[in-house]
Amino acid sequence: MQKIRSGTLAALLLGSIITPTFSLAAPADSDAIRQAALKDEVAWDFTEGLTTEVGPRPAGTPQEARARDWAVAKLKMLGFRNVRAEPYDMPVWQRVHDEARVTSPFPQSLVVAALGNSGSTGEQGVEGEIVYFPSIADLQAAPDGSLTGKIAFVSHDMVAAQDGAGYGYYGAARRQGPSIAAKKGAIAILVKSIGTDHHRIAHTGVQMWAEGVTPIPAVAVSVPDAEQLARMVARAKPVRVHLTAVSRTLADQPSGNVIAEIPGSDPKAGVVVAACHLDSWDQGTGAIDDASGCGIIAAAALQVAKAGTPRRTIRLLLAGAEEVGGNGGRAYFAAHGQQPHALVMESDFGADKVWRVDFTLPTGNEALAGRIGQALAPLGIVPGRDKAHGGSDIEPLVDAGVPVIDLQQDGIRYFDIHHTPDDTLDKIDQEQLRQNVAAWAVTMNLVANASESLSAN
Amino acid sequence: MQKIRSGTLAALLLGSIITPTFSLAAPADSDAIRQAALKDEVAWDFTEGLTTEVGPRPAGTPQEARARDWAVAKLKMLGFRNVRAEPYDMPVWQRVHDEARVTSPFPQSLVVAALGNSGSTGEQGVEGEIVYFPSIADLQAAPDGSLTGKIAFVSHDMVAAQDGAGYGYYGAARRQGPSIAAKKGAIAILVKSIGTDHHRIAHTGVQMWAEGVTPIPAVAVSVPDAEQLARMVARAKPVRVHLTAVSRTLADQPSGNVIAEIPGSDPKAGVVVAACHLDSWDQGTGAIDDASGCGIIAAAALQVAKAGTPRRTIRLLLAGAEEVGGNGGRAYFAAHGQQPHALVMESDFGADKVWRVDFTLPTGNEALAGRIGQALAPLGIVPGRDKAHGGSDIEPLVDAGVPVIDLQQDGIRYFDIHHTPDDTLDKIDQEQLRQNVAAWAVTMNLVANASESLSAN
Repeated sequence: MQKIRSGTLAALLLGSIITPTFSLAAPADSDAIRQAALKDEVAWDFTEGLTTEVGPRPAGTPQEARARDWAVAKLKMLGFRNVRAEPYDMPVWQRVHDEARVTSPFPQSLVVAALGNSGSTGEQGVEGEIVYFPSIADLQAAPDGSLTGKIAFVSHDMVAAQDGAGYGYYGAARRQGPSIAAKKGAIAILVKSIGTDHHRIAHTGVQMWAEGVTPIPAVAVSVPDAEQLARMVARAKPVRVHLTAVSRTLADQPSGNVIAEIPGSDPKAGVVVAACHLDSWDQGTGAIDDASGCGIIAAAALQVAKAGTPRRTIRLLLAGAEEVGGNGGRAYFAAHGQQPHALVMESDFGADKVWRVDFTLPTGNEALAGRIGQALAPLGIVPGRDKAHGGSDIEPLVDAGVPVIDLQQDGIRYFDIHHTPDDTLDKIDQEQLRQNVAAWAVTMNLVANASESLSAN
Repeated sequence: MQKIRSGTLAALLLGSIITPTFSLAAPADSDAIRQAALKDEVAWDFTEGLTTEVGPRPAGTPQEARARDWAVAKLKMLGFRNVRAEPYDMPVWQRVHDEARVTSPFPQSLVVAALGNSGSTGEQGVEGEIVYFPSIADLQAAPDGSLTGKIAFVSHDMVAAQDGAGYGYYGAARRQGPSIAAKKGAIAILVKSIGTDHHRIAHTGVQMWAEGVTPIPAVAVSVPDAEQLARMVARAKPVRVHLTAVSRTLADQPSGNVIAEIPGSDPKAGVVVAACHLDSWDQGTGAIDDASGCGIIAAAALQVAKAGTPRRTIRLLLAGAEEVGGNGGRAYFAAHGQQPHALVMESDFGADKVWRVDFTLPTGNEALAGRIGQALAPLGIVPGRDKAHGGSDIEPLVDAGVPVIDLQQDGIRYFDIHHTPDDTLDKIDQEQLRQNVAAWAVTMNLVANASESLSAN
C-alpha cells in the first residue's frame, strides 16, 4: 500500500471505509436521487443537442454566440430560473488553414493543427530543416541561436493515466515549447500532439507567448506523423518540412457566460456553483470537452430540484472561452466574486465514469464529506487522498478560498480525443454519462441542503 | 456444431483434425522454418522502409514510381534474383482537394474524401439539399428523377467481422451508390464511409461508373459525420450541404509491377506466385494496405530460400495499381499468363494474424493440403470449409484455373483503418506480422517442394 498522508480529512475518509462497524447507510434522499438520476435522459439530450445543432463553438466567434443562444433557450425550457447570458469582449485567435509536408528526403504530407495564438506563416508558408528534440528538456538545453532558420520538432512519450496526470507533465511541450523555440531562433515549431491515440488527427490547444517573445508558427503534429518524422530523422539525413499555418487575430470580439439557477430557500446560506464550459476547440464538436460537462451539471441540478427546493441556490455557470485561457471564469469572478459562495464544482474532463471524490472544505465539515462519501460509494466512487483543486472556470473562486469538491472522471481515454476532430458525440457512453449525473446529483443535494455553514469555523 | 459440407477436401481436412489417432507431426523442415520465421525482422524492415521512405503511393503517380525503384533496390539487396519492374500505362484519377460543410440549418464542417473516379465539382463546389437513404436498397427504390438537383446521402450499418464479410455487402453503397444516384438525377452523392471505426477520417476507395452514366461528385463521409448528418435529418428540417471535391483525370500515366524470384531447381514444375500490391491510397502510407503484405511475402520467400533451393521457382509479384481496378494483375497475366503456374497466393488483408487456411487445389492434392494444415496448426491456424478465392492481383490467374491457397488474416479491425489517413505503420503489431511470415513460409515451402504435379489428375 502506498503511504497515506496524515491529514485529518484523509484519515477520516479512509477510516470510514476501513472500519466495518461504521454505518455506511446513506440518507434516504440520496438513494432516491441516485436511482432517479441513473435513469436520466437530460444530460444526453443536452449533449446531443448542443453538439448537433451548434457543433464546434470556438471562443469569441459567432458559433460560440449561437451556443449561448441555444443554451439560454434550452435551460429556460428545462425550467431553470434567472437564465441569462453575461457578455464580455475578448481578443480572438482564429485558424484559417493548416498544411504541412516533408519536402525532402521522403516527400509526403503531415497532419498538423496550429496551436492557439500561433504565429501565421502567411499563404506562402515557411520551409526549413527540422531539428529533433526527444523532449522539452532537450529543447531547453539547445544553445541560444542554434535554431536560427530551423524548425524545432519536440517529441515526448505521453502515456494514458486514469487521473490525467500526463497532461500537466507532457503538456509542457505544447505550453512552453513554442516560446523556448522562438527564443532560440527557430522559424517555427512542430510539437508532437499531446495525446495518447494513434490517429491522423492533431491535438490543438492553447499556448501563451512568454514576455518579449515574437510569435512563430506553432503547430501540433498527429502522433503517427510525429513518429514518422522521428523515423526519418533517425535515418540521419537532413529532413526538410514546408509548413503553412495561416491564422488571424481579432480584437474585442463578443463572448460570454450563461447562468441558470435553481433558487434556494435560504438566500443567506451562499450559492453552490456548478460549472462547465460552453466553448470548444474548432476541430470537433466538443462533445467530451465540454458539452457533456454542461449536460451533466444541468441534469444533476434538475434531479436535485425534483427532490424539493434546496436550502442553497444552485447556480450553473456555463462559461465562455475556457479553452483559450479562462476568460469566462474571470468574467464571472469579476461580476460575482463578492457574493457569498458556499461551494464550487466543475465538470470538465469528459463523460466517462466518476471514480474518485476529492474535497477541499474548511475544518469542521468532515461530517459533510463523510455523508457525500457514503452517498457516492454505491456508484463505485471512492474518496481520494488529496485536496480538490477545481478547474479553470472556477479557478478564481477557488483561489479566493471558496470550498471545492472534485468528482474525478476516468481519464484513461480522454487524451485520445482531447482537442481533436475526434471529439464528437459517438465518444460518449450513455451509461457512464448517467453515472456522472447520479454522482453530481447526490453531491449537490447534500451540499445544497447541508445544515453546516460551509465557512471556516 | 454447424453443418459440415460433404466435399472431399473439407472432409479430409476436418478428419485430420478430429481423428486423434492420425499423426499430426509436421515434417521437420516445417518446424525449423516456422521457428526461424517467428524471429523474422525482414517483414517489419520492409514495411517500415516502404511506408517511411516512400509513404503514400497512388497508382500511376510519381510516388508509385518511387515505390517501384525502392522495391527493386530493396529486393536486390535482400538477395532476390531476376528483380525488375515491368511497366505499363494507365489512366489516372487524382484527388486535388475535398471540403464539405453543412450550410443550414446547423452550419459546420464535414470530413469527406472523394471516391476514386469521382466527378469534380470545380473550385466553386456544388450545394444542395441532402436526401437521406438508410441503405442502398432505399436509394435504389427512389423514383427516377426524384433526386434532380439534390445530393444523395447513403448510409448503412457495417459491422466488423473476422473474415471481412461486411466489405462485400455494405461496400455496395460505395461501389454502386454513385451510379444509381447519378441515374436518378442527383448532383452529388455522400456515402457513409465503408468502415467500422468512429474517427473523423473518411474511407475512400474506387468506384466505377455504370455504362452511360455521367459522373457526379462522389465522396465518402467519416462515420461520425455521417451519424451527425443523420441526426440533423431526423430533426426534419431541410439539411443543405456545400461540397467541394476537386479532382482531375490524366491519360497514359506510367505504372508497373515489380517481380523478384527465388529460382527453383526444376523449371518444368511450374512457378509459385506470391502476390501483394505496391500501390496504396493517397491518404495514408498504406502500411496495412499493402506494404505489410509485400513485407510478409518477401520475408517468407527468404525463409524458404534459407532452408535450401526449392524445387519450384518462387516468384514475388508486387503489383501496381491494385486499388484502382487491378491493372497490375491484368498486366502480369497478359505478360506471363501462358507460363506454367503451379500455384498462386496473395497477402492483401492487413498484418493481423492468420487464423484460417482455404484451398482450391485440383483433385489428387488432398495430401498436400493435409501437410500444410498440419504445419500451420502450431500457429493457431485451422482449415476452413470453403474454397480459396485469391485476391485482385491474382484474379486473372485464378480465373484461368491456377490452384490457389488463401491464408486468411483476422479482419476484425481491418475496416477501422482501410483506405483512410490512419493506414500507418503504428497499426502493425510486430508479433502478428511474424506469425504471418511463419504461416507463409511453411506453406510456400511445402508447395514449392511438393513432389505432386499440382495439376489436375
